[in-house]
Amino acid sequence: MSDTLPTTIVIFGASGDLTQRKLVPALYNLYCKDRLPQGLKIVGFARSDLNTDSFRQRLETGLKTFSPQDYNPQSWSKFAAVFEYICGDLTSAQDMGGLKSELERIEAGPANRLYYLAVAPQFFAPTVVNLGQLHMESDAKGYCRLLIEKPFGTDLESARQLNRAIHKVFREDQIFRIDHYLAKETAQNILFFRFANAIFEPIWNRNYVDNVQITAAEQVDIGHRADYYDHAGVLRDMVQNHMLQLYTLIAMEPPASLNADHLRNEKVKVLSATRPIETSRVVIGQYEGYRGAPGIPADSRTPTFTALRLFLDTWRWQGVPFYLRTGKALKSKATEIVIEFKRPPKVMFDKTSDVDFSSNVLSICIEPDEGTHLRFEIKVPGSNRESRSVDMEFHYRDYYGASGLPSAYERLLLDALAGDASLFARNDENEESWKLIDPVIRVSSAPGKKELSFYPRGSWGPAEADHLIEADRRKWLLGCIHE
Amino acid sequence: MSDTLPTTIVIFGASGDLTQRKLVPALYNLYCKDRLPQGLKIVGFARSDLNTDSFRQRLETGLKTFSPQDYNPQSWSKFAAVFEYICGDLTSAQDMGGLKSELERIEAGPANRLYYLAVAPQFFAPTVVNLGQLHMESDAKGYCRLLIEKPFGTDLESARQLNRAIHKVFREDQIFRIDHYLAKETAQNILFFRFANAIFEPIWNRNYVDNVQITAAEQVDIGHRADYYDHAGVLRDMVQNHMLQLYTLIAMEPPASLNADHLRNEKVKVLSATRPIETSRVVIGQYEGYRGAPGIPADSRTPTFTALRLFLDTWRWQGVPFYLRTGKALKSKATEIVIEFKRPPKVMFDKTSDVDFSSNVLSICIEPDEGTHLRFEIKVPGSNRESRSVDMEFHYRDYYGASGLPSAYERLLLDALAGDASLFARNDENEESWKLIDPVIRVSSAPGKKELSFYPRGSWGPAEADHLIEADRRKWLLGCIHE
Repeated sequence: MSDTLPTTIVIFGASGDLTQRKLVPALYNLYCKDRLPQGLKIVGFARSDLNTDSFRQRLETGLKTFSPQDYNPQSWSKFAAVFEYICGDLTSAQDMGGLKSELERIEAGPANRLYYLAVAPQFFAPTVVNLGQLHMESDAKGYCRLLIEKPFGTDLESARQLNRAIHKVFREDQIFRIDHYLAKETAQNILFFRFANAIFEPIWNRNYVDNVQITAAEQVDIGHRADYYDHAGVLRDMVQNHMLQLYTLIAMEPPASLNADHLRNEKVKVLSATRPIETSRVVIGQYEGYRGAPGIPADSRTPTFTALRLFLDTWRWQGVPFYLRTGKALKSKATEIVIEFKRPPKVMFDKTSDVDFSSNVLSICIEPDEGTHLRFEIKVPGSNRESRSVDMEFHYRDYYGASGLPSAYERLLLDALAGDASLFARNDENEESWKLIDPVIRVSSAPGKKELSFYPRGSWGPAEADHLIEADRRKWLLGCIHE
Repeated sequence: MSDTLPTTIVIFGASGDLTQRKLVPALYNLYCKDRLPQGLKIVGFARSDLNTDSFRQRLETGLKTFSPQDYNPQSWSKFAAVFEYICGDLTSAQDMGGLKSELERIEAGPANRLYYLAVAPQFFAPTVVNLGQLHMESDAKGYCRLLIEKPFGTDLESARQLNRAIHKVFREDQIFRIDHYLAKETAQNILFFRFANAIFEPIWNRNYVDNVQITAAEQVDIGHRADYYDHAGVLRDMVQNHMLQLYTLIAMEPPASLNADHLRNEKVKVLSATRPIETSRVVIGQYEGYRGAPGIPADSRTPTFTALRLFLDTWRWQGVPFYLRTGKALKSKATEIVIEFKRPPKVMFDKTSDVDFSSNVLSICIEPDEGTHLRFEIKVPGSNRESRSVDMEFHYRDYYGASGLPSAYERLLLDALAGDASLFARNDENEESWKLIDPVIRVSSAPGKKELSFYPRGSWGPAEADHLIEADRRKWLLGCIHE
């Protein structure tokens, strides 16, 4: 039934940055590709003093600024008609009541609703409470779904509280917690890479894999987000959500289907089989100059970099370390998963030499150069016995052009509209992640317990991150960028 | 001891095409790379009325014509001094006696000898007999080796006879039977690909491989070689030697080392485990216009194309078909080995659809675009569940430039000089190949027993070759060229 009803997307925080930069460009692209449902309305709600006209103008300016390659005045002017703006305060029962009546007026009958919480996290619960008091969560006629931006909680306890508050109003299957990393094409492709091919899965286990490395390196520093970042730090900003999501995709068992619950059951299984992180071996770092930045206390201990090691006790992976590192103000932008395989037995080549073969390395590059590299050994031409490493490479750009991949927000919006929650984090998944990361955050914020290592901007992080992996006689690898 | 002695290469048939086109350019390149032994002399022997000067001029002309990119007048004039020419008939005991004294005069003491039989096959045995009568096979002081061009025999019986004749004079370890396919970089690399990497060998067996295809397609027709070719045909010209050599490299077990005998033991094991070829399912073809060519009888049944299927009864491969096809006047030049893997179980994507996933395909391209391709499935960007095939690619040219690979003859000459026989066919290897091919040749040449299928020039051979593989619900694949 919901397929035939009109649909309303309500954006809370519609005058904010995210709406301009990400949501509306994504919606506009979906419109141009004719992938939005019939009879769609998009209602912006925020405190800013705007009306529908000035809201539409603001969105157009945003589109021109942030997605100039997509902007086309004709199609924009057609699309702009779907937007309405309602000015109000989401903490005010009265304003929310006004929103309710306006929505009913606009919809003029039964409709599907998608509430998009593009607001600061402290407003997640109050908005939901107000929606609940006005019975705006009802899906008796059309569907009614809640999209929530990150961060979902700041630790296990706050995440649990938030889940409890939301569950008083919405059922879990109505809730779509966003992790935009999961919606990147290359992240989604991990499942296809593993399970739509017959040749990788047989070697995707402790018999063949020596270690797995997940790097999410940013070149940018914290920019203008000092207030948010200094409270969050890299463990909340990147590890609890994005990095652990990538980790689950690599480590999970084949799900029975790609159905959201089958998939998320497998991810929860990985998280709950993961050993508590050895906090003594976690490296936390801060780039030089962070403390001098506007809005950052001069003695801030907030880490902008971390490197850590995970083990999980499954039949498939026991004993195989997963190394994670991520940070800001690093040398290059690179999000990449590296599977380093065990070395082959050196039975027939140069047995006397001390030099081992290089190991095979499979690199799945999430960004910026989306694709896969497979490092393997060939004979050096002209030699008899000498080998060297080369790469087999696949680049999305060779098949889809330089800007060919749809944005993560397009995927997320489409899936939420279609009711497919497979790329969204479930409550237990979110809480299991916090369970792993909480102790690391606690140790990291205690000056006596954990040394904060400083690193120069434009480096690959503190030397301690190298020591972490070198202590295991391994090295950090990046297959897709050449340092 | 042989390392410190001077070395003489004696080329029988020195005025012929092979010497000009292949041998001397290869020797010259090795000279320019400073890879030839100290104190090398190269003595040409043939019936043509030449002297050392005119012989050197002829070789220079050949070099300029066939390897203009390599030719440099200064280095040629230095190198040319190693050549001497002796005019004589290799079937004449007297002329061979003259050669012997000349060699002794030139060498003026103990020396290593490499005899290169660049003559027509009917002269292999007589040359060797004469060398034996003059005791020129002795390796009492330096080494003494015999290099023999193909073809080695025209069937099992003639190969055995030739082996017996040669073994009366030379020990097997002195004999180097040339198969220049084996010396191509990309063919040599098969062993490195398999055994210097840890990730391919686990899936290199009947559990994961659906079938293997070896294609050696030539665009050229028989050219000016009518007389040779019409007697040989494609089975002798390509299958008994080159194709079966590639087959053994793909199918063999890991040898204990790359030592020539360890390696060749494994190859013989493959050949002797191969079931007799089902001649009823062999396709033989002849390109249209072959019979009209100068020197070809109007009713010639000589096949210029063949397609056939091999099975071998080893633990690794039982039940996996190896399809071979090769021919002249085909659409493209391509020598390629294709490993087609089994399809993955379709457990989670589109279970309802009838369309299976594509299989993973590993292509090892021997020529012309040397490299490897690995076809795998990715998610179609923007879709939820749709997959498509893409390639990970490695090209030698990306690492070594467009003309970066040394010629097969350089490798063969270097190895023969170094006494490394691993890229040369051993007597039992040669005889086992004939054992497999003899019945096919017998059936092919009998009009009543086997239909000869005609195919247009520039096609991929007769339709019967497609039927052969389609009867097994498979298709011919070429990963490295896009048809």
